[in-house]
Amino acid sequence: MSTIAADEAVEQESSVAELPLGAALNIAFEGRYHQRRAAGRALWPAAGMHRDAALGLTEAREWTLRRLHEVSRSGIGISIEPAQTAERAALEQSLIDFETVSYGDLSVAIKSGVQHGLFGGAIANLGDAAQQERYLGPALALDLLGCFAMTERGHGSDVASLETTITYDAEAGDFVVHSPHPSSAKTYIGNAAAHGRMAAVFGQLVVDGEPHGVHCILVPIRDESGAVAAGVSIGDNGHKGGLLGVDNGTISFDQVRVPREALLNRFGSVDAAGRYSSSIDNPNRRFFSMLGALVRGRICIGGGGAIAARRALSIATRYAERRTQFTHPGTDAETPLLDYLAHQRKLLPAIARAYALGFAQNDLIETFARVASDPGRSAKQQRALETLAAGLKALNTEFANTAIQTCREACGGAGYMSENRLTQLRADTDVFATFEGDNTVLMQLVAKGVLTNYAEVWGGLDALGMVQASARLVGSSVIERTGAGLLAERLVATARRKGDTAAIYDRGWHAWMFEERERHSTDSLARRMRAADRDSFDAVNALQDHVLFVARAHMERVVLDSFIAGIAATTDAAARQTLEELCTLFALTSLEADAAWFMAHNRMSDSRAKALRRQINQLCGELRPRAIALVEGFGIPAEWLGSAMIEG
Amino acid sequence: MSTIAADEAVEQESSVAELPLGAALNIAFEGRYHQRRAAGRALWPAAGMHRDAALGLTEAREWTLRRLHEVSRSGIGISIEPAQTAERAALEQSLIDFETVSYGDLSVAIKSGVQHGLFGGAIANLGDAAQQERYLGPALALDLLGCFAMTERGHGSDVASLETTITYDAEAGDFVVHSPHPSSAKTYIGNAAAHGRMAAVFGQLVVDGEPHGVHCILVPIRDESGAVAAGVSIGDNGHKGGLLGVDNGTISFDQVRVPREALLNRFGSVDAAGRYSSSIDNPNRRFFSMLGALVRGRICIGGGGAIAARRALSIATRYAERRTQFTHPGTDAETPLLDYLAHQRKLLPAIARAYALGFAQNDLIETFARVASDPGRSAKQQRALETLAAGLKALNTEFANTAIQTCREACGGAGYMSENRLTQLRADTDVFATFEGDNTVLMQLVAKGVLTNYAEVWGGLDALGMVQASARLVGSSVIERTGAGLLAERLVATARRKGDTAAIYDRGWHAWMFEERERHSTDSLARRMRAADRDSFDAVNALQDHVLFVARAHMERVVLDSFIAGIAATTDAAARQTLEELCTLFALTSLEADAAWFMAHNRMSDSRAKALRRQINQLCGELRPRAIALVEGFGIPAEWLGSAMIEG
Repeated sequence: MSTIAADEAVEQESSVAELPLGAALNIAFEGRYHQRRAAGRALWPAAGMHRDAALGLTEAREWTLRRLHEVSRSGIGISIEPAQTAERAALEQSLIDFETVSYGDLSVAIKSGVQHGLFGGAIANLGDAAQQERYLGPALALDLLGCFAMTERGHGSDVASLETTITYDAEAGDFVVHSPHPSSAKTYIGNAAAHGRMAAVFGQLVVDGEPHGVHCILVPIRDESGAVAAGVSIGDNGHKGGLLGVDNGTISFDQVRVPREALLNRFGSVDAAGRYSSSIDNPNRRFFSMLGALVRGRICIGGGGAIAARRALSIATRYAERRTQFTHPGTDAETPLLDYLAHQRKLLPAIARAYALGFAQNDLIETFARVASDPGRSAKQQRALETLAAGLKALNTEFANTAIQTCREACGGAGYMSENRLTQLRADTDVFATFEGDNTVLMQLVAKGVLTNYAEVWGGLDALGMVQASARLVGSSVIERTGAGLLAERLVATARRKGDTAAIYDRGWHAWMFEERERHSTDSLARRMRAADRDSFDAVNALQDHVLFVARAHMERVVLDSFIAGIAATTDAAARQTLEELCTLFALTSLEADAAWFMAHNRMSDSRAKALRRQINQLCGELRPRAIALVEGFGIPAEWLGSAMIEG
Repeated sequence: MSTIAADEAVEQESSVAELPLGAALNIAFEGRYHQRRAAGRALWPAAGMHRDAALGLTEAREWTLRRLHEVSRSGIGISIEPAQTAERAALEQSLIDFETVSYGDLSVAIKSGVQHGLFGGAIANLGDAAQQERYLGPALALDLLGCFAMTERGHGSDVASLETTITYDAEAGDFVVHSPHPSSAKTYIGNAAAHGRMAAVFGQLVVDGEPHGVHCILVPIRDESGAVAAGVSIGDNGHKGGLLGVDNGTISFDQVRVPREALLNRFGSVDAAGRYSSSIDNPNRRFFSMLGALVRGRICIGGGGAIAARRALSIATRYAERRTQFTHPGTDAETPLLDYLAHQRKLLPAIARAYALGFAQNDLIETFARVASDPGRSAKQQRALETLAAGLKALNTEFANTAIQTCREACGGAGYMSENRLTQLRADTDVFATFEGDNTVLMQLVAKGVLTNYAEVWGGLDALGMVQASARLVGSSVIERTGAGLLAERLVATARRKGDTAAIYDRGWHAWMFEERERHSTDSLARRMRAADRDSFDAVNALQDHVLFVARAHMERVVLDSFIAGIAATTDAAARQTLEELCTLFALTSLEADAAWFMAHNRMSDSRAKALRRQINQLCGELRPRAIALVEGFGIPAEWLGSAMIEG
């Protein structure tokens, strides 16, 4: 897929002296990926991009498959390369492609994610060269539609406890895939109910009576004619709260035999003599390598949720600018909704947060491509990536649901009409909060990553480590920053010196407060963890809300770091100024949400806390005249929004 | 409709010595209306109560109309009596009926609300005896399906600015109903797109060139065969984000003539000589009398939203009790979701709030019936009712959307499947937040009511009044309490004496803090109002978030007052003890949400603020073993929940 022409067009565009604010914001916002995103938009087959919300289940599924073919033919979504040889550009492209697909119907995006990202990704990540050679091309070309069969009815988030067995039969020389209990049935599997012909099935590998943990095997589930394979039972999850175009279903296996070569071999294989071998000795590390396929999925889902939120904010902001309510006192002019402070406070902090999360997503894409393409990556780098992907998936999808709902309500009755697109966006993204990792579970993973780092820096969570930790200088940082965070680190150092005299709009003060929130809550959690009996469910359970607070504090800090770095990389002066204001709005809104914490922990004075609200209101008023440019900065052409109420 | 048998059954039930906790909670929770609610449940035709989420628009509309006939035949929803003669019991029954209908499909509930509550209500409230005689019976029997045509495309929340004209033609002796602009078209009108034959149309009455403000007139829109009447244009709002069974549409009028007798005459009429007369001299008061029909609608929507939230909480709690995730450390037993603190914090505070809002709704029903049936009611009583109805509608529907979404996410992928009912509940209640009064607009009405009371007590918002206000004793209360609030008032007095030594679980301290939040924010708003140039849009607009805070503080206090009174009326000791704990959980959660405000305004110490979280966590743990009883207290039979994942 050639992006050169589009790249050049963008290059010329950005060299024009006075760019409109919206265009300049878009270049800054999309950062190092702006040209490739613009190239994706240039390829995007916009005609017929939206699904009629009135389509029933069967029609919606057929429409979605047809549309997926159209999108794939345009070259979008097919940049999945074998993990052994994938270079950074291809890894990045696979994530950018998912964003592009998310401009349109989200069932198509998710079906592309299932087919290319998960099924294709399982082959690309877990298969050996021969398996990739045989299956990856047909999967990407949609000639072999497939499923990613991980989740089981009895086990949602707990992948280690999967019940499906993959047992090697040494005599026959093949594998037997089996669902021992009703709870072992795979469920919510995309492509299962109607279109899939093969499934990448995750289960417990057993060779010669010995368990080797979770592995993945390719199992044919339908033949060319669509008939279900012998021993395979397929159910239909039926009508859902959204994503009607994705054919989710259940799959169970009754002693289904597949050849020895069907086991995806990269991290574990059984040779002709029936001997198991693995390139990874540690079963725990092997398990996480198997789950590595999930990381890209999480980044995609977060990115797709972010695009959905931007679409909704673009719609609601344009509507709020044209829709009037009540007359302006003293005149006959009717007041646009967006003139009202209450309306500004619904939309503008959400726009600011959308920018913040967008900058962080850029950095995540960069980190993913760098780490995933580096054969010498350390366990620590891998963990940092997984932590960031999990956390940003949770933040992005939580934000998408909240922001789209806010937009729906901000558009009143019109917002409820399907022709205006908001309810469909909301229904389709709803499940983003709980699939590809439940957000609550993912945030616990984030905290675990933070604590593991903490333990490495401060010598473990045992008694000695804690003595060291509490003996360190007050104000010294447990937060290790790299890349995007280095700038924030310098700002914090300056703000610390100013102390209480730092102004409320001082970026250094924001970064300092974000850091304090993370550092102090992590410190105190580590202390409580040490004091707790970690074999006691009750003792560990009692810390769960603290754990979630730490995860959130960490992620907010990471997001602010990215925003700061993104602004520094912005060359257009007007865009930079507007981004500074948006960043302040994001930071103050985040601080306001935790103002009680800051006060209770003596990080913020009463007067400063009270001033937050005033400052946020004032920023909303200042940004309001630029509201349309702000949503233009998201880069979504108005004619792609597909919302009747803002057309004509 | 005879409720005697059911009443007796309940009477016997409650006389049993040891009632199960769920049943005892239900009796307490439903309070003075328990027997009539139980009677409604006894009448309820449960078979076929749920709509298949997969039904398309046309099928859903037909299903809904059929089901509405079934429900109406059972005697539910038809207790609309002429306003002139309606007694308290009938007024209460109309509200209880809407709750009962809300156990089932919400499209049926809304269609019942449109047909019986709004269309029937317009006749009952605004018609004279002859009009009621002629139209009310057929409307209630579904022989005359009708619309409540108020909202216009150009004017959502601003009813005073309606553009539709109702012009008296003295020569012809009839009225001409006309939509002068495209923006005058009535829109989102239930029963318009398919089933309605008549519309109660709101417009500006003009007699002999003179405007008399908004009035309501009955206009035939379809004949017996379903053909649209001459001069009337009907459009279809089409597919929506939910409530697919309600046929919302647009109606516009091109010089449509209707007889003089079609004007609903109770508050304004034109005699044969073409002279306008009204029983209400003040056009402003007349306008609000016309809108009185909206009050019942708001109470119904709030009540229906509350039932929807309880249904979702019943489903999610039962699921959380049976669904396990990960194993308990040290054992092989898998851990029920509800054992996790994070899960408890999702569901239990929401259950507590559902109880709180339920007690407040009971008091609202009582207030409505008392005020509406009292011909000698004062303007102040009327205003207090409207304020309470607006505020509780906003709180209930906001809560419904939040709580149902929390429930959906708490059930993971299963929560997203239509067969488990949560997404349909969520989609159907979504619009509750913005119809029958947009919640943001309603909360501004609440603040206006609070400020008007304030001005009456403290001598206006002018300079002199403010001097009086600031000269009053610190701690004296601007909050006038009656009925349910008197108990809270006494508790506050005691807590004040204790001051800082009051315990965190002391109900008096909660009530005191709720009162302080309302009193101080109202005081300071009044002060800012006085200082502001009230003719300046910017000056008034700058107060909007403060206005919304006051409204919320007021409503939270009112809700707590009701909860306290409801507990006092509870005789069963175990139920009472559990309700005390729920009330504490509700109160602390509300205080925690505004902890920053309390600290910044020196109402709460740092250590107290920190203790809130601990106390909430502890309460969640203590209530957790009773979780099923708590949702049984909502009174919804498990077999009515219609959720596959908790059956079998």
